[in-house]
Amino acid sequence: MKKQNFQNYRGYRNAGIRLREELVPSLALQKERTEPYLYAFHMFDKAHMVMLAEENLISKDAVRQLLSRLREMEKEDITKARLEIGGGMHSGEQFLIRSLGEDIGGLFHLGRSSGDLWEVGFRIFARDSLLRLLADIFKLRSILISLGLEHADTVMPGYSHGQHAQPTTWGHMLLSWASVLERDSERLLLAFRHTNRSPAGAAILTGSDFPLNRKRVAQLLGFEQVEKNTFDAIMSHDLKMEITSTLAVLYLNLARIADDLMLFSTAEYNYIEFPDRFCGTSSIMMQKKNPYAPQYIKGAAAEAAGGLVTSLLVEKDPTSFPIMDRDSTYKAVEHTFSNLARDLGWMNEFMPALTVHKDRMREQAGAHWAQATDVAGALVREHGLAWRTAHQIIGIVVRLSEDRNIRPFDVTPALIDEASIEYMGRPVGLSAASLKQALDPVGVVNRRAIFGGPAPSETQTRVGDYRALLEKDKQEVDRLQACLSEGTGKLETAIDKLLSDT
Amino acid sequence: MKKQNFQNYRGYRNAGIRLREELVPSLALQKERTEPYLYAFHMFDKAHMVMLAEENLISKDAVRQLLSRLREMEKEDITKARLEIGGGMHSGEQFLIRSLGEDIGGLFHLGRSSGDLWEVGFRIFARDSLLRLLADIFKLRSILISLGLEHADTVMPGYSHGQHAQPTTWGHMLLSWASVLERDSERLLLAFRHTNRSPAGAAILTGSDFPLNRKRVAQLLGFEQVEKNTFDAIMSHDLKMEITSTLAVLYLNLARIADDLMLFSTAEYNYIEFPDRFCGTSSIMMQKKNPYAPQYIKGAAAEAAGGLVTSLLVEKDPTSFPIMDRDSTYKAVEHTFSNLARDLGWMNEFMPALTVHKDRMREQAGAHWAQATDVAGALVREHGLAWRTAHQIIGIVVRLSEDRNIRPFDVTPALIDEASIEYMGRPVGLSAASLKQALDPVGVVNRRAIFGGPAPSETQTRVGDYRALLEKDKQEVDRLQACLSEGTGKLETAIDKLLSDT
Amino acid sequence: MKKQNFQNYRGYRNAGIRLREELVPSLALQKERTEPYLYAFHMFDKAHMVMLAEENLISKDAVRQLLSRLREMEKEDITKARLEIGGGMHSGEQFLIRSLGEDIGGLFHLGRSSGDLWEVGFRIFARDSLLRLLADIFKLRSILISLGLEHADTVMPGYSHGQHAQPTTWGHMLLSWASVLERDSERLLLAFRHTNRSPAGAAILTGSDFPLNRKRVAQLLGFEQVEKNTFDAIMSHDLKMEITSTLAVLYLNLARIADDLMLFSTAEYNYIEFPDRFCGTSSIMMQKKNPYAPQYIKGAAAEAAGGLVTSLLVEKDPTSFPIMDRDSTYKAVEHTFSNLARDLGWMNEFMPALTVHKDRMREQAGAHWAQATDVAGALVREHGLAWRTAHQIIGIVVRLSEDRNIRPFDVTPALIDEASIEYMGRPVGLSAASLKQALDPVGVVNRRAIFGGPAPSETQTRVGDYRALLEKDKQEVDRLQACLSEGTGKLETAIDKLLSDT
Amino acid sequence: MKKQNFQNYRGYRNAGIRLREELVPSLALQKERTEPYLYAFHMFDKAHMVMLAEENLISKDAVRQLLSRLREMEKEDITKARLEIGGGMHSGEQFLIRSLGEDIGGLFHLGRSSGDLWEVGFRIFARDSLLRLLADIFKLRSILISLGLEHADTVMPGYSHGQHAQPTTWGHMLLSWASVLERDSERLLLAFRHTNRSPAGAAILTGSDFPLNRKRVAQLLGFEQVEKNTFDAIMSHDLKMEITSTLAVLYLNLARIADDLMLFSTAEYNYIEFPDRFCGTSSIMMQKKNPYAPQYIKGAAAEAAGGLVTSLLVEKDPTSFPIMDRDSTYKAVEHTFSNLARDLGWMNEFMPALTVHKDRMREQAGAHWAQATDVAGALVREHGLAWRTAHQIIGIVVRLSEDRNIRPFDVTPALIDEASIEYMGRPVGLSAASLKQALDPVGVVNRRAIFGGPAPSETQTRVGDYRALLEKDKQEVDRLQACLSEGTGKLETAIDKLLSDT
Repeated sequence: MKKQNFQNYRGYRNAGIRLREELVPSLALQKERTEPYLYAFHMFDKAHMVMLAEENLISKDAVRQLLSRLREMEKEDITKARLEIGGGMHSGEQFLIRSLGEDIGGLFHLGRSSGDLWEVGFRIFARDSLLRLLADIFKLRSILISLGLEHADTVMPGYSHGQHAQPTTWGHMLLSWASVLERDSERLLLAFRHTNRSPAGAAILTGSDFPLNRKRVAQLLGFEQVEKNTFDAIMSHDLKMEITSTLAVLYLNLARIADDLMLFSTAEYNYIEFPDRFCGTSSIMMQKKNPYAPQYIKGAAAEAAGGLVTSLLVEKDPTSFPIMDRDSTYKAVEHTFSNLARDLGWMNEFMPALTVHKDRMREQAGAHWAQATDVAGALVREHGLAWRTAHQIIGIVVRLSEDRNIRPFDVTPALIDEASIEYMGRPVGLSAASLKQALDPVGVVNRRAIFGGPAPSETQTRVGDYRALLEKDKQEVDRLQACLSEGTGKLETAIDKLLSDT
Repeated sequence: MKKQNFQNYRGYRNAGIRLREELVPSLALQKERTEPYLYAFHMFDKAHMVMLAEENLISKDAVRQLLSRLREMEKEDITKARLEIGGGMHSGEQFLIRSLGEDIGGLFHLGRSSGDLWEVGFRIFARDSLLRLLADIFKLRSILISLGLEHADTVMPGYSHGQHAQPTTWGHMLLSWASVLERDSERLLLAFRHTNRSPAGAAILTGSDFPLNRKRVAQLLGFEQVEKNTFDAIMSHDLKMEITSTLAVLYLNLARIADDLMLFSTAEYNYIEFPDRFCGTSSIMMQKKNPYAPQYIKGAAAEAAGGLVTSLLVEKDPTSFPIMDRDSTYKAVEHTFSNLARDLGWMNEFMPALTVHKDRMREQAGAHWAQATDVAGALVREHGLAWRTAHQIIGIVVRLSEDRNIRPFDVTPALIDEASIEYMGRPVGLSAASLKQALDPVGVVNRRAIFGGPAPSETQTRVGDYRALLEKDKQEVDRLQACLSEGTGKLETAIDKLLSDT
Repeated sequence: MKKQNFQNYRGYRNAGIRLREELVPSLALQKERTEPYLYAFHMFDKAHMVMLAEENLISKDAVRQLLSRLREMEKEDITKARLEIGGGMHSGEQFLIRSLGEDIGGLFHLGRSSGDLWEVGFRIFARDSLLRLLADIFKLRSILISLGLEHADTVMPGYSHGQHAQPTTWGHMLLSWASVLERDSERLLLAFRHTNRSPAGAAILTGSDFPLNRKRVAQLLGFEQVEKNTFDAIMSHDLKMEITSTLAVLYLNLARIADDLMLFSTAEYNYIEFPDRFCGTSSIMMQKKNPYAPQYIKGAAAEAAGGLVTSLLVEKDPTSFPIMDRDSTYKAVEHTFSNLARDLGWMNEFMPALTVHKDRMREQAGAHWAQATDVAGALVREHGLAWRTAHQIIGIVVRLSEDRNIRPFDVTPALIDEASIEYMGRPVGLSAASLKQALDPVGVVNRRAIFGGPAPSETQTRVGDYRALLEKDKQEVDRLQACLSEGTGKLETAIDKLLSDT
Repeated sequence: MKKQNFQNYRGYRNAGIRLREELVPSLALQKERTEPYLYAFHMFDKAHMVMLAEENLISKDAVRQLLSRLREMEKEDITKARLEIGGGMHSGEQFLIRSLGEDIGGLFHLGRSSGDLWEVGFRIFARDSLLRLLADIFKLRSILISLGLEHADTVMPGYSHGQHAQPTTWGHMLLSWASVLERDSERLLLAFRHTNRSPAGAAILTGSDFPLNRKRVAQLLGFEQVEKNTFDAIMSHDLKMEITSTLAVLYLNLARIADDLMLFSTAEYNYIEFPDRFCGTSSIMMQKKNPYAPQYIKGAAAEAAGGLVTSLLVEKDPTSFPIMDRDSTYKAVEHTFSNLARDLGWMNEFMPALTVHKDRMREQAGAHWAQATDVAGALVREHGLAWRTAHQIIGIVVRLSEDRNIRPFDVTPALIDEASIEYMGRPVGLSAASLKQALDPVGVVNRRAIFGGPAPSETQTRVGDYRALLEKDKQEVDRLQACLSEGTGKLETAIDKLLSDT
């Protein structure tokens, strides 16, 4: 090598080679923004070298030097070591050329491109992030299931259009959130399956004219499949949109929970209260107990939606145009994963710690006519009216009660007869006992033992289904995690073999 | 019934019952916007009545009258018949009360709510739309696979950053699009599975105190499962966000194809040409042949993205607040399905009818240094250089060629030596024959027989994988379609039985 | 003209001229989707002909025939007449060629392109829509101002973080909405100024080699300026993004009002009630009074946001690629204007018709410690404490009150001293009279006579500012409307002159 | 003050005052994320103290101590000093209480809230950012105007639908970009006017019962107006949506320029070339010269669009719910301003440094029938054909040329006659000289001297208009900047006076 000094080697993009000028510093800076992926590049660097050696594309001697150096890098923190070298996708090569010169270090990148280097790095990172996220979600599902059971008989009003609809239980509502997270889990698992396919060896879009063993690299990295089209492996980016959209939908679901908790923690609803450690107070209004955590969660959901839109705009172009543009998508993905870790951490802490005002809930359950449906039901059951007839009569009852300031529990059979006469010309004759029974919100709930309904008995049964599905999902994630570990195991074994194989 | 005339019955929301004023006409109009769902409400109406009869919740005699009337409705077009009645979710009940009076017609809605009525209608509609969409996508996948095989040796430049990267084939690129659509198919199938669960019997959020048989209704409607939490069944709306996001990702993928075809049909690229029937000309520039279809596809993708954002904003609120708001989401879903049917129809027609300028593609494949990688590869293989060293030397060669206006095919071993001396102080000595071989774009492609690479032989092998996966997906959709038909069959059989059972 | 029959002339895009095939029918259909713009094309058609005649680019005789025919078109409804001809931008030319043959009718399009034809049509439509929208907004501002004054002393709690913050008035809150609409008005007026510039004569991007008089056409169409770069006039589309974003921001503002009204109309807040005619009830829960209108408004806001995103995606491409794609933007613009007309119509009707529960508002204003700030203020004013010291002491008071179930009005000087001792080791000694005064929410409000504050006296003063600004904005819109009318006047006068000028 | 040690004072939110627990650390972290605003809080802190002193709300002695300490803070970097204190909105108070104890330092926050503290800080930050942004845009406008003049005769093809439309000039296209930026400037100036209104003294929504002088504070901070409704001043957030949307529209405009430059720098178009310092090369394809800068610009535009959507979602809620959520909007605003500074910096450097391939542009201008319009024009002018007739005949000519592989310059009068006979049964007889003249793209451009057209003479005239408007906008920004400086001047003078006033 001609009078070159590789001690400070900064990579292949140098003025005087292909191009005539050094890169504008603020542009170079953008390229080095790869911190969350450095450990993943490291894995791929190792797997690629093992494969090159196994396929006799570099000498055994060289590969020993290269792998030894990378192993040394691991003694301290990989990320730290690579940041010191300047960060970036090519920090491995830079490190190796600095230590071993271009003759040895320069062997390293054979058959790879920034294309597959980045894509492999991204997928390893996304794979790990998805599994961590699923673990957090499983924890939340587990909490919601336990609370659902605990509050199976905590009667409260159910609402629609913001209005009192029918009595239900806090447990029933909590379990509905668990249901949503079951579907989120399935969506994340599908995204995981799409992520867990190896683009390694696809280079930029055509692979290589060196006989790389793509299946071996995939195996060493724990990928389940090899992408079967090298063009697709690097140039298609629906996976990123799938991830941003799946995370955005998940986050909107969490935001809805947060919004419900905001609403229920107002003085007006007064159903729940956040632990003080999740709240702030005001610099002027010292009475304030402001629930901070749910607001940040809602804000982070809005960020996730923004990130999704960013990813859609990035992809709106001919296939080959956006490459650096995708950095904006990657930042959104990283940011959303990071927000989710924070927010699920909070939720898993505060959900079981919420104060629940059961008495207030139960009191409200009957205070605003949520039990009206069952009064009409009684007319059908006990007096043979057609549903619609009963419905209209009780509609009139509610209007009259409102006009006369009569509360639900104070309604009399006479009022029902008055309405009945108004509607169909004759009294219906509901008994006071039946009326009382129909009006009791606890009774309303207990009578709803229909499949999936809020009756405590039914909730107790269904909780078994929730638990079974959670167990199944956990086992799948354990299996996936084991596959990744198996890959890592094979990789380290292969390296050990190469290093000892003198 | 007191002196009421039900001939012109318009529903239960009348001034004088619960409320004191008629609904503002422009508001009423919004509520009737349900045309695509009318056939689905009809199915649910029938299944609900069958179940009510089987569970002895209405009399056999009444159910016969009700079902007979509904069957009559089917003699003409269901949608038309229901629109005449005023449209809307409750057109079934309105029809029945008009024909049979409230005593009989009013029995009909027992245990249901607009909540589950709408949700069931939506899911039946979405289910059918998803299966139709999958059929269109399978057709496009099939076309792309066939064209991929046909163009397995149509050599063209592959691009990245908008620049010539490496030679590939048109077939390889077409198959990459098929790969994307494979993942879209999986995402749509997951959305289908989430759609194909029955909310029937959940009423508004708590089910009913009448002992409805939710499993039976689900069976009669062909649903695979019953939603296991009635609150979740009606009040969670992640399914709609899942659908809008899945469709938006699919559409962005189609838009990328459209954008590529726009680019490749410019005079400057001149790779493909649209059939005249998909093009317009100009009212002033008569030379114009404007590709209309891909532009509308790109526009529709932008609409799908807009619809997704609409659905996210709708859901950003406490759970119980947005009900009518969701109409905006439903409109977006309907609109996107409808656009997709149009655009996949176009694509399935124009893709096989594109004129492909193979000579131009092949000429460009070698004209702008896309084969440079292989020249460096030759230095590694034949002269033992480290990859990075070879890379830098050929980088210098390209710069010198550009400075001196030398085209790739005119580069000589001497120029390579000049660069080699500049970089490492000595000539490398690549032979003219090796250089020529490395520079041939057809050779470049043929050498890329790596797994998933563009070599025609490899493409031919992989096409088998594409076909197998397509076959598997088709079988799954056939199975799903059969389940739906089975449900319909059971429903009609049950009705026949009730009608004949005197 | 060779044996041609122009009776059924359908335009210049015919198989056998430039292209070899007829346009696919579903594509042709897209192109005819121009109904809202037909009246605007008609105006431009007339103005263009007047100019061609004045500049001697077509003969006086021909122009008389052409203009007479167009005037006849106006006898019935222009839109209807043009739809009968097939709709579309070129319905004018089609009509004229059908009536007068190509020799005369074919003179008509000289120097124009679909480019400027569409852009002029869009701007005339957008101009009129913006002015109509501003009129609706002015009406709402006027209503809010009047209600603001009416409710200047309707004391209610002000909230932040969903928690009781400080007492304010309903009038103060209503006026804050008027303030938002003032800014929306300014944004719309800027969009109007950008719209009201004439692209006529720019053809597709370079204008014409015929000496068209662009200033004259602009004048006849009432445009304030002529676009000074013909490329920009047709190929830049920031105006559309400006319109979609301005409308989306406006709509989110309206949605916030709707969300507040939803919240305040819950049983828990119970501050306001919608007129029955804006509400529905339920098919099962007859007690329901569901506020429909605010929900549709929120949904329409979500649609406007979706339309904005659509317009951004459409523009994300090289300048010349999206032309038909922009149809998606135009549809979004039309749709949002139409929704706004509907929703502002509703708001202008229901805002003054809301029932306001003043007693409930006032009761809540003091029930949850919103007046705490003023108690600390009393410690500062009367006992010379530093603000922060007073703030912390009253913070302790609130905590103790909560622990001991003491309501604000039941707090005693002793409790304050207890807190004071806890915080600073000595009692502060606030008198019972001062405490009582500080705790009165009406007093709290009355004391806030600071500039812009909620004291009724201050509100009454500020209402003058609101009225003055509304008057100024109205005058500006009147002036703009007069300019448009002046243009129309000149156009008709010029036509009269040409028609009579034999 | 009771045995308290204020040396390590961390603010008013302490366990044991209002709340019982310390804030969760990860939540506290979020609250301190205020770095870009610290200098602005500092300004408001000073202005507020001056006003308190002038209104005799704190003693002259105390104010001297407080202001002296703040002045000391300025000796080192304000931001750094405040970050050391812990950052956050209340870093001023924390600093003062740490130095002076609560007796003096605790006087400081009288009459303020986090509400107006934050809002004032945001507006000062946004105001400065907007003016800096405008300066960058003015620089780009100036560059585009100069380049527009320089390239007034650089003939190139104009495109629509991605197809050759008509010849224009590179200068004409560059000026169209300047036009867009003129409108962006106006939108930003309106956003500035809405930003430049003082919310100071509005506290959280009702102002204060202390007689704060809001006008004086506004004056000392250089605000043009005082917000006239304290509720609106803090609780309305349309301003943030206005800013995010205005920046997003601007960014999409910049992205369009970037996309055009990407397209024009492909090997196929080959119109322009980026300076090497804005480009990268590939780790595998050493021939690559990848334009990095435009891709990052496009990516940043996608981020700006994402940020806009984030801001819309944040606001979709009842007024009082989102407070901490808005942090997500603020982050988006900061991020977009920061990206814009980076990207406009790049554009202002690379735009004048682009290599323009004039010969290639001119060659393409006539190679693909862009001049066809003028041939039809010649038939109208010289042979009296109706435009539509001429248009159709030349349409046939183009088709025949394409069928026979005849290039535009090789078309003969005979071919035109052939088409003419086909269309209207007789030859039209265009002379060879007329045909040649019509076909020359330079002639085409020169004949387009219509107002705003691409003829070099017209461009030279219009450049004067561009310069005049730029000058006007600059003067406005200078005026606005001067107003801000005047405010700062008054503030420091007032402080000097108070400090010296013993």
